[in-house]
Amino acid sequence: MEQNKRTQIAELGEFGLIDKLTGAFAPRNRTTLRGVGDDAAVIAASRSEATLVSTDLLMEGIDFDLTYFPLKHLGYKTVTVGASDILAMNALPEQLLLSLGVSSKFSVEALQEFYEGVRLACEELNIDLAGGDTTASVTGLTVNVTAIGRARRSDIVYRNGAKPNDLICITGNLGAAYMGLQLLEREKRVLHDVENPEPQFAGHEYLLEKYLKPRARRDVIAALAEEKLRPTAMIDLSDGLASDLMQLCKASDCGARIYLERIPIARQTHQLAEEMHTDPVVAALNGGQDHELLFTVPLSMQEQVMRLGLVDVIGHITQPGTECYLVTPDGSDIRLKAQGFKEEI
Amino acid sequence: MEQNKRTQIAELGEFGLIDKLTGAFAPRNRTTLRGVGDDAAVIAASRSEATLVSTDLLMEGIDFDLTYFPLKHLGYKTVTVGASDILAMNALPEQLLLSLGVSSKFSVEALQEFYEGVRLACEELNIDLAGGDTTASVTGLTVNVTAIGRARRSDIVYRNGAKPNDLICITGNLGAAYMGLQLLEREKRVLHDVENPEPQFAGHEYLLEKYLKPRARRDVIAALAEEKLRPTAMIDLSDGLASDLMQLCKASDCGARIYLERIPIARQTHQLAEEMHTDPVVAALNGGQDHELLFTVPLSMQEQVMRLGLVDVIGHITQPGTECYLVTPDGSDIRLKAQGFKEEI
Repeated sequence: MEQNKRTQIAELGEFGLIDKLTGAFAPRNRTTLRGVGDDAAVIAASRSEATLVSTDLLMEGIDFDLTYFPLKHLGYKTVTVGASDILAMNALPEQLLLSLGVSSKFSVEALQEFYEGVRLACEELNIDLAGGDTTASVTGLTVNVTAIGRARRSDIVYRNGAKPNDLICITGNLGAAYMGLQLLEREKRVLHDVENPEPQFAGHEYLLEKYLKPRARRDVIAALAEEKLRPTAMIDLSDGLASDLMQLCKASDCGARIYLERIPIARQTHQLAEEMHTDPVVAALNGGQDHELLFTVPLSMQEQVMRLGLVDVIGHITQPGTECYLVTPDGSDIRLKAQGFKEEI
Repeated sequence: MEQNKRTQIAELGEFGLIDKLTGAFAPRNRTTLRGVGDDAAVIAASRSEATLVSTDLLMEGIDFDLTYFPLKHLGYKTVTVGASDILAMNALPEQLLLSLGVSSKFSVEALQEFYEGVRLACEELNIDLAGGDTTASVTGLTVNVTAIGRARRSDIVYRNGAKPNDLICITGNLGAAYMGLQLLEREKRVLHDVENPEPQFAGHEYLLEKYLKPRARRDVIAALAEEKLRPTAMIDLSDGLASDLMQLCKASDCGARIYLERIPIARQTHQLAEEMHTDPVVAALNGGQDHELLFTVPLSMQEQVMRLGLVDVIGHITQPGTECYLVTPDGSDIRLKAQGFKEEI
């Protein structure tokens, strides 16, 4: 007997799945300037301007664990997640819509804490909470954030504009959020059946903040505008450097070479990684949730981009048909592989 | 010892909750023309046009039951839910962003069915799928739909424009979706431990379609534009006539009188309600999920609006300070009360 075909989602991975599901959709409205396949959809506003819209779903038990994630921080981080998608298009986020699915275990006061974090982040980023939806949930908390931004059409930076020899720039440092998460998970395990748990976080505050309360890099986008520097391509670092760089290269039809010793990793990340017998480079490459920006600029802009004082150049773009490689200090090339969703599900 | 205050969400209800949570947010960007409190956020596009954005969260076990909800229909209905919010602003939806949270119980083929329904509805409504997010989920399916539309600023209809003596108009008929749901729930209970269940749906196809595959009323918005008829206020009928009318009246600072015998209820709704010993008027008032439109027009437009052939006039708006009443055939007034969220949680 024939059975209906049943393909596991994990066989395709997140990006394969999205390609498969959305392949049949071709834009039909002339206001749809860019649809699926970038950090945000780009919609014509006026002749010269565009509205950018992104959506992100955060689910309890997958994207956050309320055992150690304070609701106020979760509200703050929700805004960061949404805002980062808009910033990664070289645009400024201006509005936010929030959908909340809440089970009866949450009190009004708990939700107020969440919204207090939302308010804080919105204030810092000059974003308006402009709508939302609240529904019941069988178990746990579900959050969806729709972020809306605005830019001159000519200022928008897509994932697909990188050219051979462009420099690959990274803001901030990588792997810290991942190590913060590892620390929280370790303390949760250790203190599982301790009555008055006293988690050991001393000296690791920076990592915890990078995981629990990351800041969206509005400052970087503002600085780029100030310096009249327009990247050729850009992406939000949410899935990990390896995955996000490969996404950018795939969209731009090119390869990349990045240099291991140039990847910015914080001292605290190194310290905890050593203590936990983890490789900090793996944390940087695959950890994700850094919410820093990865962008490319023409070689000719090297001096100008370094003068910002906000980025590290970690490598360069290579010809179409090439792959993405990590070059180690001893000169060997390691081909990058994407991690992420495939493991989660 | 003092305890932290813990208020149950049900004590406030959905609208009380939203007021409490979003009260501290005042718009700061001049592009935010309308924030929380209508079917969609209104964002300045150009001097004369605006972009409308809405968000809706649908959760398995709360908003749908996959025991009897085919995934293809769920995809279709998701688009209807999103599109209706934009239509209710007297605007046309043009783009859609979809977030999906999926547990490992779903195969790629199952998700393809869902997207097939999305594609169908998008085609009918001329909407582009322009982005989304896919994440894992611990259990079940979570769907968030962000709908984006466009309108001339002067064409947009808000909830708050109803004036005393305006006529209250309803498209289609009410209560059918609710009765469709009751039927599906009944068959689920009855056939709970039957090996080869054969649910009895004969004669009730219309009700099932209104629940499982409701159409967004793009035709109504197009007809209003054709006739150059601009309602004074409008709302999507998603929570039930009573709740939605009260929302509109609260926003417009007025009351209403609607007449029981004028509420459009389909023959099939009456039939099943009788069979199930339910009051069809209660289904129409509190059932929800009709995704029809409720709008008000000045008395002077009565003839014009009736000529559309798409609406029933069920009552009129009353002075500020008055409440919302249902007038029964014997002339008695029943004050309307909102149902919905409060009972769900």
